[in-house]
Amino acid sequence: MKITIAQLNYHIGNFQGNLEKMLQAVEEAKAQQADIICFGELATCGYPPRDFLDFDDFIKKSLECIDQLKNAAKGIAIVVGSPSVNPVPEGKDLYNSAYFLADQEIKYVQHKSLLPTYDIFDEYRYFEPASEFDVVTYKGKKIALTVCEDIWNIGNENPLYTICPLDLMVPKGVDFILNLSASPFNYKHAQTRIELLKDNVERYQKPMFYVNHVGAQTEIIFDGGSLVMSPNGQVFEELPYFEECVRTFDLEEVIKGETSNAQPKDKIALIHDGIVTGIKDYFGKLNFKQAILGLSGGIDSAVTAVLAARALGSENVRVLLMPSQFSSDHSVNDARALAENLGITYNIIAIKDVYDAFLGKLEPIFKDLPFNVTEENIQARTRGTLLMALSNKFGNILLNTTNKSEMAVGYGTLYGDLAGGLSVLADVYKTEVYELARYINKDQEVIPENSITKPPSAELRPDQKDSDSLPDYDILDRILFEYIENVQGPQDIIELGFDPKLVARILRLVNINEFKRYQTAPVLRVSPRAFGMGRRMPIVGKYLS
Amino acid sequence: MKITIAQLNYHIGNFQGNLEKMLQAVEEAKAQQADIICFGELATCGYPPRDFLDFDDFIKKSLECIDQLKNAAKGIAIVVGSPSVNPVPEGKDLYNSAYFLADQEIKYVQHKSLLPTYDIFDEYRYFEPASEFDVVTYKGKKIALTVCEDIWNIGNENPLYTICPLDLMVPKGVDFILNLSASPFNYKHAQTRIELLKDNVERYQKPMFYVNHVGAQTEIIFDGGSLVMSPNGQVFEELPYFEECVRTFDLEEVIKGETSNAQPKDKIALIHDGIVTGIKDYFGKLNFKQAILGLSGGIDSAVTAVLAARALGSENVRVLLMPSQFSSDHSVNDARALAENLGITYNIIAIKDVYDAFLGKLEPIFKDLPFNVTEENIQARTRGTLLMALSNKFGNILLNTTNKSEMAVGYGTLYGDLAGGLSVLADVYKTEVYELARYINKDQEVIPENSITKPPSAELRPDQKDSDSLPDYDILDRILFEYIENVQGPQDIIELGFDPKLVARILRLVNINEFKRYQTAPVLRVSPRAFGMGRRMPIVGKYLS
Repeated sequence: MKITIAQLNYHIGNFQGNLEKMLQAVEEAKAQQADIICFGELATCGYPPRDFLDFDDFIKKSLECIDQLKNAAKGIAIVVGSPSVNPVPEGKDLYNSAYFLADQEIKYVQHKSLLPTYDIFDEYRYFEPASEFDVVTYKGKKIALTVCEDIWNIGNENPLYTICPLDLMVPKGVDFILNLSASPFNYKHAQTRIELLKDNVERYQKPMFYVNHVGAQTEIIFDGGSLVMSPNGQVFEELPYFEECVRTFDLEEVIKGETSNAQPKDKIALIHDGIVTGIKDYFGKLNFKQAILGLSGGIDSAVTAVLAARALGSENVRVLLMPSQFSSDHSVNDARALAENLGITYNIIAIKDVYDAFLGKLEPIFKDLPFNVTEENIQARTRGTLLMALSNKFGNILLNTTNKSEMAVGYGTLYGDLAGGLSVLADVYKTEVYELARYINKDQEVIPENSITKPPSAELRPDQKDSDSLPDYDILDRILFEYIENVQGPQDIIELGFDPKLVARILRLVNINEFKRYQTAPVLRVSPRAFGMGRRMPIVGKYLS
Repeated sequence: MKITIAQLNYHIGNFQGNLEKMLQAVEEAKAQQADIICFGELATCGYPPRDFLDFDDFIKKSLECIDQLKNAAKGIAIVVGSPSVNPVPEGKDLYNSAYFLADQEIKYVQHKSLLPTYDIFDEYRYFEPASEFDVVTYKGKKIALTVCEDIWNIGNENPLYTICPLDLMVPKGVDFILNLSASPFNYKHAQTRIELLKDNVERYQKPMFYVNHVGAQTEIIFDGGSLVMSPNGQVFEELPYFEECVRTFDLEEVIKGETSNAQPKDKIALIHDGIVTGIKDYFGKLNFKQAILGLSGGIDSAVTAVLAARALGSENVRVLLMPSQFSSDHSVNDARALAENLGITYNIIAIKDVYDAFLGKLEPIFKDLPFNVTEENIQARTRGTLLMALSNKFGNILLNTTNKSEMAVGYGTLYGDLAGGLSVLADVYKTEVYELARYINKDQEVIPENSITKPPSAELRPDQKDSDSLPDYDILDRILFEYIENVQGPQDIIELGFDPKLVARILRLVNINEFKRYQTAPVLRVSPRAFGMGRRMPIVGKYLS
């Protein structure tokens, strides 16, 4: 028996696009003499569809896709994820289901049982869990159908769940296991996934085909990395990351398990490729072509510009250099050098005249009050307005260049340098941005060395340095990581050896700046805990603040 | 037996503040010879605590409050909501619990069973549902403890749930029912709540004490309206809306049920009072005193200014009038008249010089490209920057004045008129803003009549009117209401008699502007479906767009 894995880049709500893509893959699978082709979780409508699921019309369109795929299931069986309607009034209105389509019929539907409701996931908001489990027989083989999280409770060891679907299916006699996933990327996830699959295979001694999504849906990136596992616990094949792939496997070969292939998993390379995918799909799926960003001469905007050029092509990235009287000469030179290295269009607008015009209008009100953060923010907002003017006039989408360290402690100006349609680096700590820059420069100097080595500065007042108001980034980032990724409280972090006053100050900064993060662009998620839908914090709170 | 209801305004994470408030109420209850005092759901930590619940330290602090309250439970029993720790590894780590404290001991803990995971609620993200149900006996009376949603599945008729806690408790013999709630306000909710309580009382024929929160937590407003129900189904007492109240009731009197009191429920009055509460608590809980907003002469900013002055006092509201060359004379006059009626500080800054400075710097890039939305947005962003400059210099928090109709169709400029820390009117349709203005003016003309009667205009180009690009607001708002509040798809709305092309255009505008709403301030929620945490939509989607 031959089984095709279709690792595709779906688009939420784009039923026609998703369907055409799947029908094309069915043709490819047929050409490869496949018996079965398997798509991902909720492939008809894309993942996560969020509250679109509340619209009957949206569900109807998903079911129309299933109907079309059913008609195509001729000479080949199609396994595909889609919402389905709960036929009884009890429980939520929908199931998150795997359809088995063959001989132009719906042969079997297995609903998802384990509904993740943590991190970025809200599945219990929409779906009723499965209570019935069976296997489907096709061409003499017995197949267990599982949807994503269903395989994440091996032997009931995950305390979140009380059911282990495969424990209920495998005793019915199973030849192989299919899993339809939509399992979002973070830089640790590919390794976790392989370990999880190994554990499953070791428990059940069955070959396993794990089909993931690829591509980004706003902030959520899917890396693909679909897996074929031999019953001996080896990775028979790991599909590529961040690209679509339709590949067919011979079940007998997989069972023999004589080869083993997996992708390299370098953290910084994964972050790099993940972000490039995130930018590319944000633009592609919203039908935008061109990006704009402000280039300061600093490392964050430099890395953002490179990633944008790699995602969209140099011809589609435009940058604006906006020096003020506080900018150093090298800032403009470094920014210009980068733009030239990348071959991207750049313009220079000195902001002093606009800044002065603002100050002139405010003078009758401000009188002789001293320079403070107000004037710094006017500079940042003047730049934001200039960038948005080009964005509006030429249709370039503004990319935000803020890193995770700044975003965490509120080191940025709302409507100024925090503006933009997509936040490219806001899940990458400053120390990791340096690693990304080194990775980008590994073969040749793309980012001017000076942008990497000079002390970071916002250049909003004379001789300003980040270190004037923040601790060294290597200390800051470790404290932030404990608080954000590891969900450690103040006492726990202090016990790791950090200064109690510093810990209190940093945690307070994170908490009191929730209002800023609320108003910033979606953040491409590359870590296990990004700002955004996976981290939901009150604004009006008084905890550690 | 005497029972005290404590309808209090908690503050998320402010354990010390919440505890002091509760201890004060305990003293009041003792002075009123009460036998039992009952607080709201998760009263120790405030509601909704969101991902603060993931921190062990946060839970520890909640439990320390319980410990303090336990010590105070001497001569009086205290019923209070708090997170509690699930002692077994299976299931989520926490319960959402009602503690019964008496004789300085924890006499009983009843966990919440029905965990809302829809709309603004994410309870299944954090809590394990109760599986055991009992009643607590105190001074010879048997009491059923329920937490909020637990009473929302009368006789298992709510399809979301399969358990009806009171069906399991009442057969054990119950003298009265306590419900600890944190049930957020919308303009329909007070009526819904009374009907729900009536249905419960009619089923069980027991007196019922329903204790709600009051006050706002960022966008979520609690109206109070706590209820005492007699077994005959009458409202024995409905506590006031939008104010704290500690009141003691004699159980025998409640059982007799010879009086009946409920509050008036005028929609516009409720919205008015709800928003005033929302502004007041946003400032109070974040320790801000003063607000600023831009006054255009139009109705939205006028209504916002009045509501802000009523929430914070006229002395704490400052406005900026920022005419451009496209502003009409009456705009400035109307705005000035309002500021004078309210007795608030105002300044006038003409934006032309800054606008011209921007255009001058952009001219080498824009050359002779025609005036379009770019130049409109530069004006809006110049105003946003001026407002934020005053905000930064004087510490006034910027209030956003956008209404729900504009917010829905994306009629507003990001970082310009969409700026602000709190969105005051973005859950109020334009047609409702007019009703609010009339309500405000019911006794005397606060808002100049001209601001109410003139055709709405953004005044960003010569002779611009909202009606140039949008349908009449009474049609627009009805379509939006069907799509947003009633979750009707395009076909359903067309069948109500609206023009198919118009419906398609409006729904498309709503969906393609999700990116703007993502970056705007929290919206005070007054309707059953507000933008924000209760409506979660993908940005990169292609549904109806």
